[in-house]
Amino acid sequence: MLDEALLSINQVTTLERWSLRQAIDGYARHGVRAIGVWRDKLDEIGAAAAAKLLRDAGMTVSAYCPGGLLTAPGEAAFRARLDDGRRMIDEAATIGARCAVMISGGLKDGSKDLAGARARCLEGLAELIPDARAAGVTLAIEPLHPMLCAARSVLTTLGMANDWCERLDGGAALGVVIDVYNIWWDPNLVAEIARAGPRIAAFQVCDWLAKTTDLRLDRGMPGDGVIDIRAIRKLVEDAGYTGHREIEIFSARDWWRRDPDDVVRTIKARYQTAV
Amino acid sequence: MLDEALLSINQVTTLERWSLRQAIDGYARHGVRAIGVWRDKLDEIGAAAAAKLLRDAGMTVSAYCPGGLLTAPGEAAFRARLDDGRRMIDEAATIGARCAVMISGGLKDGSKDLAGARARCLEGLAELIPDARAAGVTLAIEPLHPMLCAARSVLTTLGMANDWCERLDGGAALGVVIDVYNIWWDPNLVAEIARAGPRIAAFQVCDWLAKTTDLRLDRGMPGDGVIDIRAIRKLVEDAGYTGHREIEIFSARDWWRRDPDDVVRTIKARYQTAV
Repeated sequence: MLDEALLSINQVTTLERWSLRQAIDGYARHGVRAIGVWRDKLDEIGAAAAAKLLRDAGMTVSAYCPGGLLTAPGEAAFRARLDDGRRMIDEAATIGARCAVMISGGLKDGSKDLAGARARCLEGLAELIPDARAAGVTLAIEPLHPMLCAARSVLTTLGMANDWCERLDGGAALGVVIDVYNIWWDPNLVAEIARAGPRIAAFQVCDWLAKTTDLRLDRGMPGDGVIDIRAIRKLVEDAGYTGHREIEIFSARDWWRRDPDDVVRTIKARYQTAV
Repeated sequence: MLDEALLSINQVTTLERWSLRQAIDGYARHGVRAIGVWRDKLDEIGAAAAAKLLRDAGMTVSAYCPGGLLTAPGEAAFRARLDDGRRMIDEAATIGARCAVMISGGLKDGSKDLAGARARCLEGLAELIPDARAAGVTLAIEPLHPMLCAARSVLTTLGMANDWCERLDGGAALGVVIDVYNIWWDPNLVAEIARAGPRIAAFQVCDWLAKTTDLRLDRGMPGDGVIDIRAIRKLVEDAGYTGHREIEIFSARDWWRRDPDDVVRTIKARYQTAV
């Protein structure tokens, strides 16, 4: 049996149906005591009110998502993203999030300059790290699946995330998110998870459906796909990670359409059988 | 100006409209003198008849596609795929193809055993290499984009293809295909293309559309997407490759619907401006 205290649900999984308050109540109703908080849901009530709700429910925030998108072209857009990053750091500190998840951003306006976009993102992270450190927040950079390189994330592999962490030398203010969906295909997976070691700030879980129909919104419930989730979880925990296992499912055609209470019940069952 | 003699078109680009005979005639009509041949189109007339058509038209076969799919579970299915591989080698020899493109295969029947599927594919390639060598054919293994890991290709990176080539030690009977669509996102791209060096048996080109809608059939015409194709071509040629630049576009919603003569005209123009 996995420890239920380490089960978290990222609220994107019930995003369409439940507000932050409803998600906190709903997860707690089923005995789930940790949540990944989504920024636009928090914006509806503000960080201070959210912090009170979370505290009153005894809910741990395993991750606060998403920030970053630092590949914006032009100085004004880049500065605006840094301002957003600083707001996010404040919010993450207010709600006591274990980490603030940073997505690098994709290629903007048809640009082909992948190396330039990567350099820009590194530059942005370097600017944000002192603020994160001052606030006691960990910025967790998340490599997304390479199919999202153009649209969302020029950071495409865990190896690259590890390289960035080494270059940025952010200490406790910088970590990585490992989401099985993004990295399961990687031939360097075993070595790079071990290398990530104490940098692993969050571990996210869903499944890759054999008949995937969409590049972003067709993720599967753990156990419904082809990822050997348990094997990857063991690698992550062998690397020293002792935090939550956060279920995060983007599923426009299936799970987002279901009764959220049923979704949470299914997650609780699959946590034991497939994670 | 790029040398037009090195422009090839993979017939999958006009697959829905043109038979092999029509493609040979159509490409030749526009002065294109090389073709990537698709197996089910060749099957319609047989290898000997195809060889005569190609010879009469003075058409070079830059690649013969696709074979492999060696991750089949169970001994009988695996043996059947090896038999298919041997037929493909014979056909490739008959039509004088520069290489026979081998796709590794995906995860079958919901299997989660990625390492096992990779080992199985390696085993199959090791069995086929002596036949390829005897026939004077190069088996060109092609890493596909990681988004196809479950469906088509457990071989997900050029680095892994290079590792396999080193382990299999196939000499001239074994090479790699570099298709910009599959590898453009890879942070190790520069090093792995250089490492591939004389192993590069084919170079395929299309573009990644910023708003991609499908995991397999929504590739773009060179110049319509975000890949810095010219930069990758230079890396490939700096690594010693002197062969064709083969345009290969899977495009169910766009290019497959157009008049094939217009498609070929567009390719010829984009070959100079975007490749």
